[in-house]
Amino acid sequence: MPEKAVVLLSGGLDSATALAVAKNDGCECYCLSFRYGQRHEVELDAAAKVAESIDCRESRVIDIDLAAFGGSALTADIAVPKGRDEKEMAAHIPVTYVPARNTIFLSYALGWAEVLDARRIYLGVNAVDYSGYPDCRPEFIAAFEQLAALATKAGVEGRPVKLHTPLIALSKAEIIRLGVSLGVDYALTHSCYDPDKKGFACGECDSCVLRRKGFLAAGVPDPTRYAP
Amino acid sequence: MPEKAVVLLSGGLDSATALAVAKNDGCECYCLSFRYGQRHEVELDAAAKVAESIDCRESRVIDIDLAAFGGSALTADIAVPKGRDEKEMAAHIPVTYVPARNTIFLSYALGWAEVLDARRIYLGVNAVDYSGYPDCRPEFIAAFEQLAALATKAGVEGRPVKLHTPLIALSKAEIIRLGVSLGVDYALTHSCYDPDKKGFACGECDSCVLRRKGFLAAGVPDPTRYAP
Repeated sequence: MPEKAVVLLSGGLDSATALAVAKNDGCECYCLSFRYGQRHEVELDAAAKVAESIDCRESRVIDIDLAAFGGSALTADIAVPKGRDEKEMAAHIPVTYVPARNTIFLSYALGWAEVLDARRIYLGVNAVDYSGYPDCRPEFIAAFEQLAALATKAGVEGRPVKLHTPLIALSKAEIIRLGVSLGVDYALTHSCYDPDKKGFACGECDSCVLRRKGFLAAGVPDPTRYAP
Repeated sequence: MPEKAVVLLSGGLDSATALAVAKNDGCECYCLSFRYGQRHEVELDAAAKVAESIDCRESRVIDIDLAAFGGSALTADIAVPKGRDEKEMAAHIPVTYVPARNTIFLSYALGWAEVLDARRIYLGVNAVDYSGYPDCRPEFIAAFEQLAALATKAGVEGRPVKLHTPLIALSKAEIIRLGVSLGVDYALTHSCYDPDKKGFACGECDSCVLRRKGFLAAGVPDPTRYAP
């Protein structure tokens, strides 16, 4: 029997790569995506295409209303920062940070994993080329894993869920090279926080900047459709 | 300025008492309830009445679809156990356990707390007269608090959220006496997992058994409307 894994799939470059790693690890994959009021909801179309291309056992999109709380440029009427370099990104936690987002996403993944009796959750967090979000760091992941062991019936009964974060220590270029070696089609993925109405990437938000530089550094042609 | 607190309010006896404690601690209270596909959705009417009776700053009900995952007698078509005593309840984690429920609820509370800049979350978990749920134990609460400090911008910046669980070490009778001393009107609350169509309590599920015994032991008249 293949090992079951719940995979958090946003539709971006990182989560598509994490999914490919899970598949390559021999897992039967259950993809979980969220419609949370994000301004780049177009990423969910990307998530569906990615899940289809990688032959997942099941895909679910959960509606959650983070916009009701607001407090982020991704869910409220706050401008997305543009044209920043990595130093500026690293200086402060940016306004695109969504309060408790990864905690909420992982909580749902934990619930689904327990019902499926899956012992693995994969997520594409990355603490190298990232936007400084606190809930992408190794210490956050370790704390959630500890919580998961105590929170669930499965954990108490000795079948705790483990978090798999295969990208956490990789640069964006390394992630891209890993994904290419596993056959990920990055043309299907979407990273931009502030796409235009046709879904073209802005090329200037933190997420676009990191993605574009990653393809350059990896020496891989960038398949992103940028706005003219 | 009063301290802000997010209070998880199910509409049951325990959370109503936790809310009264928060209010008595001088907090400005923001009540958070969930419509999660529970068979006893009538508890949300109770939550609204309780929040109104205690003069909260704001109340929100979040729709979350835990029934999509199933795996619990509270959200799927699984019979609610009846007529069990405390020993039977303590022997196994019961089928009314909802996978990752408190983790998900607390994650939302954490997100709202961060947006509000509230540093307190109150919840009415109890590890004495309870149904053996893993996510009601002190070690789970401690792990979530540790996670919260790492998960959020507020935590990283030195303003971590603290969890307040004033009932965790109290018996049901002690909770009731505390609530009565703070003016809680328990006639407004609802505890039964398996109410009839009119909202009357079954009197026999774990939640009813614990509640009924609690009123008896506290020497307080039980205002619960039981099914005839």
